[in-house]
Amino acid sequence: MKVTLNRAVFIQELATVQRAISTKTTIPILTGVKIELKESGLVLTGSNADISIETILDKDNEKAGMDIASTGAIVLQARFFSEIVRKLPEDTFTLEVIENNQVSITSGKANFIVNGLDADNYPHLPIVERTNEMTLSVELLNQLISETVFAVSQHESRPILTGVHFVLENQKLLAVATDSHRLSQRIIPMEQGGAFNIVIPGKSLVELSRSLGDKEEDVEISIMENQVLFKTKNMLFYSRLLEGNYPDTNRLIPTSFDTEIEFNVPSFLAAIERASLLSHEGRNNIVRLSITEENVILYGNSPEVGKVEEDLNYEKITGEPLDISFNPDYMKAALRAFGDMSITIKFISPVRPFTLEPAEGQGDFIQLITPVRTN
Amino acid sequence: MKVTLNRAVFIQELATVQRAISTKTTIPILTGVKIELKESGLVLTGSNADISIETILDKDNEKAGMDIASTGAIVLQARFFSEIVRKLPEDTFTLEVIENNQVSITSGKANFIVNGLDADNYPHLPIVERTNEMTLSVELLNQLISETVFAVSQHESRPILTGVHFVLENQKLLAVATDSHRLSQRIIPMEQGGAFNIVIPGKSLVELSRSLGDKEEDVEISIMENQVLFKTKNMLFYSRLLEGNYPDTNRLIPTSFDTEIEFNVPSFLAAIERASLLSHEGRNNIVRLSITEENVILYGNSPEVGKVEEDLNYEKITGEPLDISFNPDYMKAALRAFGDMSITIKFISPVRPFTLEPAEGQGDFIQLITPVRTN
Repeated sequence: MKVTLNRAVFIQELATVQRAISTKTTIPILTGVKIELKESGLVLTGSNADISIETILDKDNEKAGMDIASTGAIVLQARFFSEIVRKLPEDTFTLEVIENNQVSITSGKANFIVNGLDADNYPHLPIVERTNEMTLSVELLNQLISETVFAVSQHESRPILTGVHFVLENQKLLAVATDSHRLSQRIIPMEQGGAFNIVIPGKSLVELSRSLGDKEEDVEISIMENQVLFKTKNMLFYSRLLEGNYPDTNRLIPTSFDTEIEFNVPSFLAAIERASLLSHEGRNNIVRLSITEENVILYGNSPEVGKVEEDLNYEKITGEPLDISFNPDYMKAALRAFGDMSITIKFISPVRPFTLEPAEGQGDFIQLITPVRTN
Repeated sequence: MKVTLNRAVFIQELATVQRAISTKTTIPILTGVKIELKESGLVLTGSNADISIETILDKDNEKAGMDIASTGAIVLQARFFSEIVRKLPEDTFTLEVIENNQVSITSGKANFIVNGLDADNYPHLPIVERTNEMTLSVELLNQLISETVFAVSQHESRPILTGVHFVLENQKLLAVATDSHRLSQRIIPMEQGGAFNIVIPGKSLVELSRSLGDKEEDVEISIMENQVLFKTKNMLFYSRLLEGNYPDTNRLIPTSFDTEIEFNVPSFLAAIERASLLSHEGRNNIVRLSITEENVILYGNSPEVGKVEEDLNYEKITGEPLDISFNPDYMKAALRAFGDMSITIKFISPVRPFTLEPAEGQGDFIQLITPVRTN
C-alpha cells in the first residue's frame, strides 16, 4: 500500500472517523483507524461499541490529488497518527506500508516509521440488508436531532430512555425523547411510505449530527436487526439500536388547558437564565412563575445568597391566574430548542405537566415539562 | 452606597480584580470582591495569599457614565456577582446597599437582592513606602516576563526557584529564571539608578502580565519589605516576594564553545515538535541531534510506537561534529520565547549545558539547557 495525497483533506477525513474512536476501549485494535486503499480510493474506518464511521475519499477527488502507487490496508493508532499528520511540514504526504505492518510517513525531509496492526484483524462492520429505507435531507435530520436529543435521559437506570424513539407510519415520521421529567416530540410528514419503530442512542445521534455538519445533501437511512445505517455520498455512519419497548408517550400530552401565555423565546430565556443563577445556589433548583391579571413575575430564591424577581414581558395571556414552580434547566433546554420565535405555554394546574409549542405551530413540535410541587 | 453605571465597563474592571480572587480560599471574605464607592470613583479590590489587585474607575470616565448617588463600601461574592452582572438585561445597572449588608442590583425590570459582607472586615492591603522606585513600559515588562517566567520551577522542593530573580544594579536590570534543568536570562539597560535584588513568584508575574494586557502606558514598580507593587494609571497590582537567597546563576553560563549552529526558529521548532511526538510516547522523552560535516539530523524514537528522523535545514555551522540528546519540551519552550528570528546554539560537549542566543544578539538574552546523558 502506497499513496501520496493532500494533507488537509486527509486530516478532515481522519477527524470524521475519529469521532467513533475511543482511547479507552478494552479492544486494542479499536483505538486504531483502519486505512484501506482500493483502486477506487481511500476508505477510513473507526469504530466503538456504539457507532462505526466509514469515510470514502474518491480517487478522483480534486482537492485530495491522490496518487495511488499500490493498494492495501493497515490499522494505525488513531490519536497518535493524527498528531503526526497534523505536524508534517508540507502540504502533501506519502503513506507507505513497508514490512511487518510498519508504515512510513514522509513529508518534505521528515520521515516517520510507526508500528501498525494487521488490517485483517479489524472487526467487520455490520452487513446492510437495505430494509425499510428512508431518505431525509441533512438539514432536516439535524433539526430533528437537535429538537429532541437534549431531552433523553442521562441515567442508565432506564436504558431505553437514553435514546430517541423514531416511529415511521402512515407517512409520518415521529421523533420523541423523554427523561420522564420533560419530553420533546417532533412530527414530520413524509412522502415515502414504509414503517419502522426504533430507538437510537442519544449519544450516537449527537455524533451523527456533528459528522454530518451542514452539508447540503441527502441521508439514506437503512434499518437492520439491531443497527441503523445513515449513508451520505462519502460517509457511512452505523449506530446500534436500543432494545426494549419505548413507553407510550402519546397519552402523556394533555389536550385541554386553563391558562395560556405567549412569550418571545430569547427574552423569556434571558429571564430564566437570570433566575436560575439564584436557583442553582439553592438546594432545590426551582424558579416560580406567577401569572396574575396585572402582571407575570418570575422569582428565583436562595436563602443563603439572595433572591431575584423580574416583571416579564409577554405577548398574550388567556385563562386563569396561576402560580407554578419548575426546574429552570429544563425550561432553558426547551427554549433553546425553539430558537428565535414566539411560543405558547399552556398550563392546567400547578401540579400538572405543561406544554410548550410554537405560537404559529400546528402540533408538529411540542414539548412537555413536569412542574415541581412546592407544598 | 448607590451607583448607576455602564455594565460592560464594570464587567471589565471586575474581570481584572477576579484574577486575584480564588474560590478555594480558606478565608471566606477573600472569595469576595470589595466594592468601594468614593467621591472620586469606584475602587474594586480582589486578593489572595499571593497577589492583590485594585482597580480604579474614575468618576469622570466617559464610557462608564457613572452616576454616584451616595458613597460607601460592600463585599460581594465575586464569582456569583460577576455572573449576575453579565446576565443583566440592559446596558446600565444600578448597585445599591439597602440594609444589613444586602445589595440591590437592578437593570431594566430585573431586580436581584443579594447578601453581602461588611467591607470593614476586608483585609487591608500592604502599605507602600515608595522605596526603590523604577519605571518600565508595559510592553517591556511583559516582554521581560514572557522571556523568563516559563523557566521557573514548577516544584515546591526548592521554593526560591519558583520565582524570577530581578536584580537592578549599575543601571542594568537583570531577570533570570531556572528550574535547574534550563535557564533563561534577560538584561535590560536602565537610564534610572537605584538597586534591588528580589525574587517574584512566577505565578504572580503570569497574572500581572495578563492584567496589564497590551496597554500603551508605564508601570511604576515599588518594593517594600516583602511585597512588590506594580502601579499603572488605573490599577495597583501587589505580589508577595519569595524569601531566601537565589542561587548564583552567572557562573552557570559557559563562555567558550566547540560547536556552533544557527537555526531559523520557526522551522527548527516545527521539527522539534515532530520529534517530540515520538519521544513523548517513550519513557525518557529525549530527542537526539546529530551534527556532522554532511548534515544535521534530528531523531525521535519510541520502541513500542516507532521512530522519526528529519534532515534539518540550518543557516550556518562552525566547529566540531557532535551528537547530543535533550528533552524536547525544554527546547520547545526556549524556542517559543525567541519568536520568529534566527538563533545560535553553542555546544561544548554532549554532557555540558548548551546556550541559545539570538544570532544578532549581544548577550542581553541568553538561554541554557542541560542535555541528557544517554550512556
